[in-house]
Amino acid sequence: MNQFHTVGKRIPKLDAMDKATGRSQYIQDLKVPGMLYGKILYSKYPHAKIVHIDTSKAKKLPGVRGVLTGYDIPEIKFGVYKDNRPLKAGKVRSYRDEVAAVAAVDPETAEEAISLIEVTYEALPGIFDPVAAMREDAPLVHEAHKTNILKMPWKLHYGDVEEAKKKAAYIVEENFSTTWVTHCCLGASGALAWFDYADNLTIYSNTQIPSLAQKDFIDALDAMGMKNRRVRVIKPLIGGGFGSKLDTYAYEYIAILLAHHTRKPVKIVFDRQEEFIATSTRQPTLTRIAQGCDKEGKLLFRDISMILDNGAYTSWGATTPSVMMMPITTLYKVPNVRYEAKCVYTNNTYAQAMRGYGNPQATFAIESSMDMLAEAAGIDRVAFREINANESGYVSPQNFKITSCGLKECINAVVRELDMDRPKEKGEGVGMASLIHVGGGARVYKSDGCGTIIKVDDFGKVNVFTGASDMGQGADTVIAQIVAEELGLAVDDIHVIHTDTDVCPWDVGAHASRTTFVAGNSALGAAKKIKAQVLEVASKILDTPEDKLVLRDRSVCSMEDDTRTMEFGKLLRKAHFSRSGRMLMAEHFYDPANENLGRDFRGNLSMTYTFGVHGVRVKVDEETGKVKILDYVAAHDVGKAINPMLLEGQVYGGVMMGIGYALTEQILSEKGQCMNPNFRDYKILTAKDVVPMKAPVLESSDPDGPFGAKGIGEPGCVPTAPAIANAIYDAVGVRIKNLPMTPERVLAAIREKRGIDLCGIQAGKDTGDACVVEE
Amino acid sequence: MNQFHTVGKRIPKLDAMDKATGRSQYIQDLKVPGMLYGKILYSKYPHAKIVHIDTSKAKKLPGVRGVLTGYDIPEIKFGVYKDNRPLKAGKVRSYRDEVAAVAAVDPETAEEAISLIEVTYEALPGIFDPVAAMREDAPLVHEAHKTNILKMPWKLHYGDVEEAKKKAAYIVEENFSTTWVTHCCLGASGALAWFDYADNLTIYSNTQIPSLAQKDFIDALDAMGMKNRRVRVIKPLIGGGFGSKLDTYAYEYIAILLAHHTRKPVKIVFDRQEEFIATSTRQPTLTRIAQGCDKEGKLLFRDISMILDNGAYTSWGATTPSVMMMPITTLYKVPNVRYEAKCVYTNNTYAQAMRGYGNPQATFAIESSMDMLAEAAGIDRVAFREINANESGYVSPQNFKITSCGLKECINAVVRELDMDRPKEKGEGVGMASLIHVGGGARVYKSDGCGTIIKVDDFGKVNVFTGASDMGQGADTVIAQIVAEELGLAVDDIHVIHTDTDVCPWDVGAHASRTTFVAGNSALGAAKKIKAQVLEVASKILDTPEDKLVLRDRSVCSMEDDTRTMEFGKLLRKAHFSRSGRMLMAEHFYDPANENLGRDFRGNLSMTYTFGVHGVRVKVDEETGKVKILDYVAAHDVGKAINPMLLEGQVYGGVMMGIGYALTEQILSEKGQCMNPNFRDYKILTAKDVVPMKAPVLESSDPDGPFGAKGIGEPGCVPTAPAIANAIYDAVGVRIKNLPMTPERVLAAIREKRGIDLCGIQAGKDTGDACVVEE
Repeated sequence: MNQFHTVGKRIPKLDAMDKATGRSQYIQDLKVPGMLYGKILYSKYPHAKIVHIDTSKAKKLPGVRGVLTGYDIPEIKFGVYKDNRPLKAGKVRSYRDEVAAVAAVDPETAEEAISLIEVTYEALPGIFDPVAAMREDAPLVHEAHKTNILKMPWKLHYGDVEEAKKKAAYIVEENFSTTWVTHCCLGASGALAWFDYADNLTIYSNTQIPSLAQKDFIDALDAMGMKNRRVRVIKPLIGGGFGSKLDTYAYEYIAILLAHHTRKPVKIVFDRQEEFIATSTRQPTLTRIAQGCDKEGKLLFRDISMILDNGAYTSWGATTPSVMMMPITTLYKVPNVRYEAKCVYTNNTYAQAMRGYGNPQATFAIESSMDMLAEAAGIDRVAFREINANESGYVSPQNFKITSCGLKECINAVVRELDMDRPKEKGEGVGMASLIHVGGGARVYKSDGCGTIIKVDDFGKVNVFTGASDMGQGADTVIAQIVAEELGLAVDDIHVIHTDTDVCPWDVGAHASRTTFVAGNSALGAAKKIKAQVLEVASKILDTPEDKLVLRDRSVCSMEDDTRTMEFGKLLRKAHFSRSGRMLMAEHFYDPANENLGRDFRGNLSMTYTFGVHGVRVKVDEETGKVKILDYVAAHDVGKAINPMLLEGQVYGGVMMGIGYALTEQILSEKGQCMNPNFRDYKILTAKDVVPMKAPVLESSDPDGPFGAKGIGEPGCVPTAPAIANAIYDAVGVRIKNLPMTPERVLAAIREKRGIDLCGIQAGKDTGDACVVEE
Repeated sequence: MNQFHTVGKRIPKLDAMDKATGRSQYIQDLKVPGMLYGKILYSKYPHAKIVHIDTSKAKKLPGVRGVLTGYDIPEIKFGVYKDNRPLKAGKVRSYRDEVAAVAAVDPETAEEAISLIEVTYEALPGIFDPVAAMREDAPLVHEAHKTNILKMPWKLHYGDVEEAKKKAAYIVEENFSTTWVTHCCLGASGALAWFDYADNLTIYSNTQIPSLAQKDFIDALDAMGMKNRRVRVIKPLIGGGFGSKLDTYAYEYIAILLAHHTRKPVKIVFDRQEEFIATSTRQPTLTRIAQGCDKEGKLLFRDISMILDNGAYTSWGATTPSVMMMPITTLYKVPNVRYEAKCVYTNNTYAQAMRGYGNPQATFAIESSMDMLAEAAGIDRVAFREINANESGYVSPQNFKITSCGLKECINAVVRELDMDRPKEKGEGVGMASLIHVGGGARVYKSDGCGTIIKVDDFGKVNVFTGASDMGQGADTVIAQIVAEELGLAVDDIHVIHTDTDVCPWDVGAHASRTTFVAGNSALGAAKKIKAQVLEVASKILDTPEDKLVLRDRSVCSMEDDTRTMEFGKLLRKAHFSRSGRMLMAEHFYDPANENLGRDFRGNLSMTYTFGVHGVRVKVDEETGKVKILDYVAAHDVGKAINPMLLEGQVYGGVMMGIGYALTEQILSEKGQCMNPNFRDYKILTAKDVVPMKAPVLESSDPDGPFGAKGIGEPGCVPTAPAIANAIYDAVGVRIKNLPMTPERVLAAIREKRGIDLCGIQAGKDTGDACVVEE
């Protein structure tokens, strides 16, 4: 069935062995001569005036090479709203606010110097609940902004929802909430920056967006008075991204500022506590959803309003509604859709992109509501989904054009693999939830492109310089497979370089599950050019028409004459070592023909969309509220699995992240302060928590994807929580509307259903621990 | 006169400030985690059987991670003749023979471990004089070779020398000799090698030939049983090459073997003594030259035979006759030429390429002989040279096609600048000597090509990946100027990457003064492709025909309408951030249309030839024999000086190297042992020895060179010794025929001329200290 020799194969990640054996070098391992260690002092208050900073003791400490505060640096503004600066002056707005930084000869000295900086604060009233923060009399987080509500345009209305409501036979309406979770990358954040004599900057940084980070740092250099400098961003091996590295952060600018101040390389790496406190989270949401259908179960409308806790500064978290719109308008066929979201400044931590980028929050509400509506309509949940399922050729109200679509096949796969209809024990339940996600890029920037350069040496080895950013997901392996496939080579023949803006062409970054599709198409385009050169050369040397030649097994072969074959390296040397010799090189820039969303948020954001359905069988302990997952099925239409093993890894990892999101993980925030900055108290799932899981792969062969592939990086964690919520409901008849669905919450719900409220928690009414109103 | 905005400018080397301020990282500075330090044990004898090696004590030393001898390693053969192996087994053939090597956690432990290795030798008779080594009964250096005379075909005869001799009005015949000198790179040799899990090799090495070294190391891996692996050669910043890094060496293979043995990164760096003893030298020569001319002074023939001391192994030194042929057949117009050279194995150190590659040795004999012949013919030396000077359009007996040629202009410049005809004081003399050298590549390999890839970012910054190897000569700066010129940018906008075989396209290496010409043309070709893309894009955006657009001052401008202009970066962003956006990238492989020498050594080796004339005014102290240089003029026809400052630097440096060669420098070899392995005793010239010097630059604008440029890396040191020898003769009437022309030799010659022989040195009859016959 697989007509390919490399694509479709279960090839281990190219760097797996080096990682497994500890040879891989992360930012933590990097040292350059003369390097100093930077350390950051964070705020002691969630909201306070900075009255005075005394750095004199720190500066006198032997080994300290530089101390900076917000008063020593130029006006560098960063973030989506440019409302953040590397070191704060005037006031602090959250506990993670950077107040001062030092560079010293070793980490211990830097740490000690930090402890010697004396900051006098004048506390200000804090605001930690976005609903309260919207009140007119609420303390302002950014005075200049005049209100805590961000001026962001998240509002759409397609069709006529009010009219549809009138026509609906069944309507359900409910509130859902999600709270802060964080990426928990095993490789903590870090940056290492230095300047050459001409103030050109080199910065190693754990980033998913080397090209965009380059632009941000160029802007910072401009602000520092250094115009027209070269900035080189080098991405070391990264121990996990998940969206956390999709923006530039204070610590990167601080490393740059300290490097410039000291004229030495400066490295800042986070410890685990810092990683929890000073990196960003998934965007917490308060969602009100109403859906209605006709008597036959056809969805008539979807009406959603949301409040998002923006925290004190604005990063990509505030833009997640742009992606939430995708499931809201296009998961299932819904003719009438209304959506509004408000982002609100608070003195909490601020959010970033995180795997799924708003989709898990929206899908939790939508797919919980789908089950509720099916029940209200008296229609089987599976049938209800089938009735409304998207199909190839469908164009959604948001103008998303569905090309390949295996949603119904995924539904069937889950029903089959989970054996959904078999008899259940007491406390056992099954649930399902679907997902749509961009699978062919996402035009959220002026370009959604990726460049590739390919260079072939004399020995049949191929260097591929890709814009793609591997942060552990295996992009380099997938790209190597694509190039190897096109050139008839083995994956070992391909070396993918994905680390350095000086070498790698532009790419918008590793987000939106776009790398296999966009960087894959870019690599394929360059490989096709190389192939054309090979065929041109081989045709002459083998005296065979180009269309009668095939590249396979490291050779160029005539299809018709077995004797006319030549080993690839030999052919290359023949081409090279002749008069007017040539080397094979090619470059390609691929920018998909997708569309930026317009002012009305319409536009075909992605070249294609990935669909999936998750099903789960749980057992709920009605005495403790503990939910045990007995079986999990995650079926996805991936177009084509370039590497089924890596794909399964993405799905397994995504599902486990989704289960953590559903059941255990949360940042416990007490008046803006993270109370559980460690893996144990945060309750991240570990290897021993892995559940029995199947990941059926459906291949719809996307017409635009490289070898038919679509993106699958994020979907794994998107519908997990609602699938589990639906299974809990199926098991014990309670609907949990707030994440995470801890045993306490489940038990409270069970008891409330039974009329008991022992814990004092009003299950189903609270909005999660995360959004406690400050009183 | 200079119509260019960047080309022709005195732009400091791009890395000058970093080097001057100590920021630059050399191989000595490199450290990678887990790195071990390798150290080599050399032979105690110049020629001996290895009876036994006991490494047990070394292996037991704490901190030692690996010990290898020639008996532990596979059969890796390297060198031009494949007569060398990384660690010797069976016997040693010179003091620099590598007998064992260790890898340890620090250099001290490695050093101590080396001292614990016990080698039992059985001494064999050594042979240190190539003349004696040619005798049938001489001890054989390589038994399998059956004779000490290398089977190399250095023999040509164009025209009829015997017939010409009969016709000649004047004939001179004389013996000349040169001895060992070495490159004295300030950055000592080093390599750092490691393997990944799949046995792909990465090696940092001080090399001038990354692409050819890659091939050598691939062969080594093959020999080690690792077929079809990727080898990545990374060239760190190099502190001087001068030809010394044109081959691969035992220490590089040892680093590879130790890295494979220990599964750790292993670094070997030489100390200064090791650098003197275990790196290679210029090829020592014994030359017999006869030249004759007619009554009018026209050269009729040149007849040269040579014996070259090959040392114990064969590297490029043995092939220097191929380049010596160039001045022998083509410096001045000589219709009848005969040349024969024999390379002879001895138990001395072996030679390598060194700046000029045989040309200084040959030119010493030729240009000394030219003065002698002029005197014999009673013709003024300058006039004699003018009579015979090459001209544009001349095709030499070896089929070298002279295109641009400024030899006569150089002669005139020297006469003028040196004020040659002014009255001289007692002991004062002037001399001159000319040179020809390849200036447009040299096709000594199957390809003389160089590849370039150019990538332009959104901000008008350009990354150039070049095959060219910068080893301190400023190739990166020259390439940056060429690209900047073509694109109307500043040099600061260009970043030249020249360090990494994974990133940089193939190039045959930094030799033959080919980089500016070949890599320059390659970079120019790629830049032209970028320019074409820029014009295509700009034409649309500025609504102006391409041929009415010009690139200058970081902008694209209409020649006719000042309002139609756009900043380069802005244009790039316009091109990028549009639908079907594009990035500007291009690649180019330039292989000059020069020719490999045929079996008869005919062939147009280079696309063009560089000419030059050196003139020198000396004062000879007749009491001490000391030669003082009062004034030096080095005039070269360089086609076009891309960067006059760097060009002058090349000339100044070359001349000082030439003066050292002429007067002071030599490896004192006592039965194969280097007796002066340090800068003081070797008598390298230092900054305080720099002589008053002018370097007139003549620009003949070569038709094939980039912006008219020809190569000028080597010529500076080519005619220095004969110019000085001729000046000494002019001053005190003695002809010194053996290099270096030490005060002792000059004094001996003066005294011999006066009939006194106090020193016991038979001046003019010995063949240099270097070639003492072993008795």
